[in-house]
Amino acid sequence: MFESLKIEVCKANKELHSLGLAPFTWGNVSAVDRANRVFAIKPSGVPYDELTPESMVIISLEDGSVVEGDYNPSSDTPTHYVLYKEFGELNAVVHTHSVNASAFAQANRDIPPYGTTHADFSYTGVPCTRPLTAEEVNGKYEYNTGVVIAEHYKSNGLDVSSTPAVLVSSHAPFVFGKSAHDAVHNAAVLEIVAEMAMKTEQLFKGECKTIPGYLSDKHYFRKHGKDAYYGQK
Amino acid sequence: MFESLKIEVCKANKELHSLGLAPFTWGNVSAVDRANRVFAIKPSGVPYDELTPESMVIISLEDGSVVEGDYNPSSDTPTHYVLYKEFGELNAVVHTHSVNASAFAQANRDIPPYGTTHADFSYTGVPCTRPLTAEEVNGKYEYNTGVVIAEHYKSNGLDVSSTPAVLVSSHAPFVFGKSAHDAVHNAAVLEIVAEMAMKTEQLFKGECKTIPGYLSDKHYFRKHGKDAYYGQK
Amino acid sequence: MFESLKIEVCKANKELHSLGLAPFTWGNVSAVDRANRVFAIKPSGVPYDELTPESMVIISLEDGSVVEGDYNPSSDTPTHYVLYKEFGELNAVVHTHSVNASAFAQANRDIPPYGTTHADFSYTGVPCTRPLTAEEVNGKYEYNTGVVIAEHYKSNGLDVSSTPAVLVSSHAPFVFGKSAHDAVHNAAVLEIVAEMAMKTEQLFKGECKTIPGYLSDKHYFRKHGKDAYYGQK
Amino acid sequence: MFESLKIEVCKANKELHSLGLAPFTWGNVSAVDRANRVFAIKPSGVPYDELTPESMVIISLEDGSVVEGDYNPSSDTPTHYVLYKEFGELNAVVHTHSVNASAFAQANRDIPPYGTTHADFSYTGVPCTRPLTAEEVNGKYEYNTGVVIAEHYKSNGLDVSSTPAVLVSSHAPFVFGKSAHDAVHNAAVLEIVAEMAMKTEQLFKGECKTIPGYLSDKHYFRKHGKDAYYGQK
Repeated sequence: MFESLKIEVCKANKELHSLGLAPFTWGNVSAVDRANRVFAIKPSGVPYDELTPESMVIISLEDGSVVEGDYNPSSDTPTHYVLYKEFGELNAVVHTHSVNASAFAQANRDIPPYGTTHADFSYTGVPCTRPLTAEEVNGKYEYNTGVVIAEHYKSNGLDVSSTPAVLVSSHAPFVFGKSAHDAVHNAAVLEIVAEMAMKTEQLFKGECKTIPGYLSDKHYFRKHGKDAYYGQK
Repeated sequence: MFESLKIEVCKANKELHSLGLAPFTWGNVSAVDRANRVFAIKPSGVPYDELTPESMVIISLEDGSVVEGDYNPSSDTPTHYVLYKEFGELNAVVHTHSVNASAFAQANRDIPPYGTTHADFSYTGVPCTRPLTAEEVNGKYEYNTGVVIAEHYKSNGLDVSSTPAVLVSSHAPFVFGKSAHDAVHNAAVLEIVAEMAMKTEQLFKGECKTIPGYLSDKHYFRKHGKDAYYGQK
Repeated sequence: MFESLKIEVCKANKELHSLGLAPFTWGNVSAVDRANRVFAIKPSGVPYDELTPESMVIISLEDGSVVEGDYNPSSDTPTHYVLYKEFGELNAVVHTHSVNASAFAQANRDIPPYGTTHADFSYTGVPCTRPLTAEEVNGKYEYNTGVVIAEHYKSNGLDVSSTPAVLVSSHAPFVFGKSAHDAVHNAAVLEIVAEMAMKTEQLFKGECKTIPGYLSDKHYFRKHGKDAYYGQK
Repeated sequence: MFESLKIEVCKANKELHSLGLAPFTWGNVSAVDRANRVFAIKPSGVPYDELTPESMVIISLEDGSVVEGDYNPSSDTPTHYVLYKEFGELNAVVHTHSVNASAFAQANRDIPPYGTTHADFSYTGVPCTRPLTAEEVNGKYEYNTGVVIAEHYKSNGLDVSSTPAVLVSSHAPFVFGKSAHDAVHNAAVLEIVAEMAMKTEQLFKGECKTIPGYLSDKHYFRKHGKDAYYGQK
């Protein structure tokens, strides 16, 4: 069951590791099958080299329970579950502790859009959520992490398509995509964008200025939406 | 047709990727054949591993139209077109979003010549253009990017031979060379020079001082021009 | 004799090298066999590629003397010896000069806990010892290095299980683990955590704030102790 | 003729490249045969992959002329020549433009000894020479580079054995060793030490303090000189 979904998610998890974005057993990728009301996610704490499609865990979109699988799912599964519930258009989620993006999260800062590399990838800055409260952490922590992300998107009028990455305060990024592969690609771009932003701030003399809005718009819509003209038809 | 030009450009594009200067489908290399009034450029959005000489796109130097090719050319093709028109001595162009050079572009700063590594490569600092206006971006954006680069060179008395790299404000570098391979080499050196300059500024105590002009001249002319004595005859 | 211990320690030393944490002949890993009152450690100054289980040196836990082995043991052997004596629950020790952790040691600073990547790994900040005195250095230097580490843990109420890494002032890290492999893993995580902390401080505007204690607790106990729920049973 | 010398120097040049310390055709290694009054050095501008022992160039210690070889020697040959003349105990020389060490050179700064990684390698800080004058640059530039290095060592009471690396102002490092391999090793350590020093300064709060002299002495003499006890006999 869910064979193609498991193959897609297994392959994307291995890709995440080979890109250097998830050393050891860190990080996890999931993707959803909305027709069958399930998503597939990496098992918890299993080395990437040992992952097979069969070792992926299938989770119910109804209640977050395990539908199929021999392993415990990623301990971040409830975060993925909430995100798929809250964002109806969401297809895939990646979580990493990549160094540069996590440094922004640890400094409790958004990543400002400083140039076209950022604008090619995200229509907005990469937001950083509020800190979770002690109650949220001591309660259903991973579930509440998803709730806080969704709250941030809603209260700021953001959507996961045009803002494909978010930083959880004092923690690390969650990244979204049209497919598991696309979400992994976005996680890699996020890490480059974060490094570039940090170095840009180091080089600025005087006030740090973000990219002009008209240039940012141009680059974003060159690659995204109905009038995009980057790539092949 | 244009077989050797396509082979040269395909090979240089793959070299750019393998040097780590163009992850995913980012970046593009072109080279010109002035006798035949055309240049060859990478197709848009095709992974580097899948590039073949046949997939390169041939563009007319007369009007920028596609002369030959099964794919859409790089979306930055009009920038390359303008540069070949404006700079009669130009043989090859590389565009990347390499991290350190792009950080200078995002900070809207020239890269100052701090030492001999820079002087071996460029006779001047690496200039950063003015920002494009909203009109220029909302009009023929990629074409106007080339226009702004050419304007900067002309108004500052620069030439693409002795100033082989330029940063477009809030964007990223364009790099020039005697051949596609030479332009890729210059793109790699630019990235090293940018990293070294950033670190030099971090280390300076007091005012940052550029390299003495007599030392810069010595190193540049040791490697370039009629009295060069570096390398084999 | 001690065949499985030698195999474990040899393998972990090679792993340390292949992770890039110990270039040339730098760094060393040891593990203890408390039933037999010995530990195994890397020979001094032998390239990692040439290490075999037979080349490991077996040291007595009674008096620190060589029990078995054809080579001189690591010059840091007396430090490992003191650590095994002082910390009865300690199973394995790694010493590296990894760049980011050593930079904190050279700046005589603890690594503050800025986020969940840190909290997943260590229950406390990574402490930095006091400088050794001239007498301690000119006397039994390596032995006294162990004494100063043990003194720091005792006077600050720390234990090697929940504080698995320490920086020796002006020197570099010593890292602990449940096995040789686990200690090498901790040495790798320490280097990531140090890089992330350095970058976090660069990004903070205003005062640098550490992770809220309730969040740090949550992440530490998600992975460690009797209520841990990360990974497979 | 000089077969073993050529093999040693060729191998060390390739090692320098594979360590990432000399991209493209940058950098050069030489070693001396004092009995035969010659040294061998890399040819100028030849890619490292194409180097063979036969392509090494043999230079006379008497007058710096080419004794044997089909290629032009490295353009930095007169610097090596002066160094072998001025320092009778010198066996091998490496020149690189490695990024972190060159950043210190470009900032016209010594690398201060901040910790034991530095002390294991050099008994003193890594000195930076005075700038060459316009006359020195416009005259016999490469020869005068050697003269300025020698002058710095003599006027500061330094020797190439205990101070195995020096930075030329606005330029890059020259590194010394007991053999070509040892000099390449020192060039690699220098780059690590430079990166660590830069990061140490970033982390210091208040005044940057160097390593206590008694600790520096201990580490240096643990690895160097008649009482060294690191490694195998």
